[in-house]
Amino acid sequence: MYAVEVRDHIMIAHSFKGALFGPAQALHGATFVVDVAFFREELTGEGVVVDIGRAHEALKTTLAPLNYTNLDELPQFAGRNTTTEFLSRHIFDAMAEAARTGRLGPGSEGVSRIRVTLHESPVARGSFEGPLGA
Amino acid sequence: MYAVEVRDHIMIAHSFKGALFGPAQALHGATFVVDVAFFREELTGEGVVVDIGRAHEALKTTLAPLNYTNLDELPQFAGRNTTTEFLSRHIFDAMAEAARTGRLGPGSEGVSRIRVTLHESPVARGSFEGPLGA
Amino acid sequence: MYAVEVRDHIMIAHSFKGALFGPAQALHGATFVVDVAFFREELTGEGVVVDIGRAHEALKTTLAPLNYTNLDELPQFAGRNTTTEFLSRHIFDAMAEAARTGRLGPGSEGVSRIRVTLHESPVARGSFEGPLGA
Amino acid sequence: MYAVEVRDHIMIAHSFKGALFGPAQALHGATFVVDVAFFREELTGEGVVVDIGRAHEALKTTLAPLNYTNLDELPQFAGRNTTTEFLSRHIFDAMAEAARTGRLGPGSEGVSRIRVTLHESPVARGSFEGPLGA
Amino acid sequence: MYAVEVRDHIMIAHSFKGALFGPAQALHGATFVVDVAFFREELTGEGVVVDIGRAHEALKTTLAPLNYTNLDELPQFAGRNTTTEFLSRHIFDAMAEAARTGRLGPGSEGVSRIRVTLHESPVARGSFEGPLGA
Amino acid sequence: MYAVEVRDHIMIAHSFKGALFGPAQALHGATFVVDVAFFREELTGEGVVVDIGRAHEALKTTLAPLNYTNLDELPQFAGRNTTTEFLSRHIFDAMAEAARTGRLGPGSEGVSRIRVTLHESPVARGSFEGPLGA
Repeated sequence: MYAVEVRDHIMIAHSFKGALFGPAQALHGATFVVDVAFFREELTGEGVVVDIGRAHEALKTTLAPLNYTNLDELPQFAGRNTTTEFLSRHIFDAMAEAARTGRLGPGSEGVSRIRVTLHESPVARGSFEGPLGA
Repeated sequence: MYAVEVRDHIMIAHSFKGALFGPAQALHGATFVVDVAFFREELTGEGVVVDIGRAHEALKTTLAPLNYTNLDELPQFAGRNTTTEFLSRHIFDAMAEAARTGRLGPGSEGVSRIRVTLHESPVARGSFEGPLGA
Repeated sequence: MYAVEVRDHIMIAHSFKGALFGPAQALHGATFVVDVAFFREELTGEGVVVDIGRAHEALKTTLAPLNYTNLDELPQFAGRNTTTEFLSRHIFDAMAEAARTGRLGPGSEGVSRIRVTLHESPVARGSFEGPLGA
Repeated sequence: MYAVEVRDHIMIAHSFKGALFGPAQALHGATFVVDVAFFREELTGEGVVVDIGRAHEALKTTLAPLNYTNLDELPQFAGRNTTTEFLSRHIFDAMAEAARTGRLGPGSEGVSRIRVTLHESPVARGSFEGPLGA
Repeated sequence: MYAVEVRDHIMIAHSFKGALFGPAQALHGATFVVDVAFFREELTGEGVVVDIGRAHEALKTTLAPLNYTNLDELPQFAGRNTTTEFLSRHIFDAMAEAARTGRLGPGSEGVSRIRVTLHESPVARGSFEGPLGA
Repeated sequence: MYAVEVRDHIMIAHSFKGALFGPAQALHGATFVVDVAFFREELTGEGVVVDIGRAHEALKTTLAPLNYTNLDELPQFAGRNTTTEFLSRHIFDAMAEAARTGRLGPGSEGVSRIRVTLHESPVARGSFEGPLGA
């Protein structure tokens, strides 16, 4: 199985609801370093999984509405805890849509799996990995 | 599949038995950077795999008896080579027990896999990954 | 010149005032990885600049009131932009006070310079370095 | 599943054919940081997957013919785009051969999977992972 | 002394002239990760050394003519070995000019020193640091 | 001021004497990642500070007697605490001697300063920097 993985980052504020989160119930923030890996069984005729440049653009487009915001105020996250693992899935869904609609260029059609990893600090990260269903 | 991964480190002395190990047969040491990833199919109601704070505590508790020791003198490792991959399994077993006994808090019960990675230097690491059997 | 440098991190929310800051005028956040280096001309009798354990504790004590907060609401920062370089100076002042009052243990008295570096993302950091005046 | 992973790097020139590659159609270059992970179900009697020293040597031997070259001029790559993911497979094939012929020392015979990861920059990497067929 | 430091990277081909360079006399390449630190005695009224966004843009503008090229063919480097330390000085000169002409925005006028660091591999880097003369 | 900096690492056991060191009084160990920076006012005719290859060799030669040892048993360290900052100075002295005796090749004669940094863990490092006196 082949993969290409691209990286970008966002700087956001948020807070969590639930005693489980202790001090993170207060409004705080994070620099999330975001890695997205695209998996494909075979390379395209050009010799790629997908074009790394287009993958970077698709990731940037996905992250733009989140960057420099307070996630607590975004309607798409109303009533949800925007944990590292929850956001990994949110970004996964957007990147899967980018692959399905061909926005990664040649190779988009054969992407079989995607893995999104968010690094929240030097000692903690979350991820979501799954297949590209229909 | 979702995951959260936490990191800590230990500073230990040890030596290896067997010509295979060349100069590492002499007493030497390592800073092991330890990553533990917990995998779960679904998030809990709070939106987590397990609480990252409790995961850090459980890892610290597991590493405490090893930190600042000569592993050659610990009874639990008598007659064994404490290689990077062997220690990965040792820590896996302890973290699996922490999950089974609920010490990671809500979500502990659904952890289906754990992966432990030990970085011994900038150019070498070992790991063990497996399911949480009964 | 000898130095020891210790690292910790905080997760905070804040916003900036001034058109200069563009999108960072909105409430957002950051994971700041904080490095503090202590410089000393000679080692103590024990062979250290200062004890690394005490240096870590002093840094943690300094960062605790900032961690998991919205810096915009802290009285000590009222009317100030809590930029990466501004926060570097804030932490410098606290660490300099820790050195002057002996909280770093033996060696505290001879610390001649301190450098504080804050990493805000993989592509940007700020710092403040200066002597320990009276 | 156990693994050991070793790292080395090469510095090469190359260019790509195809409008897909934009500015990378021009002759340029890369420092590729190369990670190779060897997977094995059980440890050997010595407590290893394979000897890390021998794994490093086998990787160095594989990379030597590529290091400090213009990949466009190497006959083994004639007519191919030496993308990050293509090179990952090239190195995979060589490392699989090293395992099959026992060049990793004791444990070589039980290596069941290999994963090769090439980091081309701080924000992009490629990989190939597969089983060791006959 | 305050500083802000920004990072970008380029992917280039080049070769060196002189027996000193051994295998690096052949055409090869590198991913250079480039850090540029701007030093200033005091912060501006906004609380910055210079705006990090403008610093990133100025660095990108400086690197654009080098990225995805064979440095051996660029007229500005004719007859020179484009070593890591030589390129550090080249980028220093351009960034110093950006500061002098106000392209870093408010704060440009007070930048007193610049340090440029180029990382060529995980085990080697070069740098140039100097004052901003007239 | 120009610099080139090279990196290597060692894996050692040691212990410290003195209540100051708490649990580190017990025999333990470390992976020390060692960076050595050579500073020079001007580049040589070839365009270098010193040859990076020779700098790597000189560092490897310096580290070899320490790698895979228990530092407590080495006669050159008898009666001393081999702290991170103490070892930085020890390596500084050896690298300064390498520069003075021309073992770094062309450019050796003009090296004016050396800085040695030892990383003992992801959160602690020590260093020594000084001029090359006679």
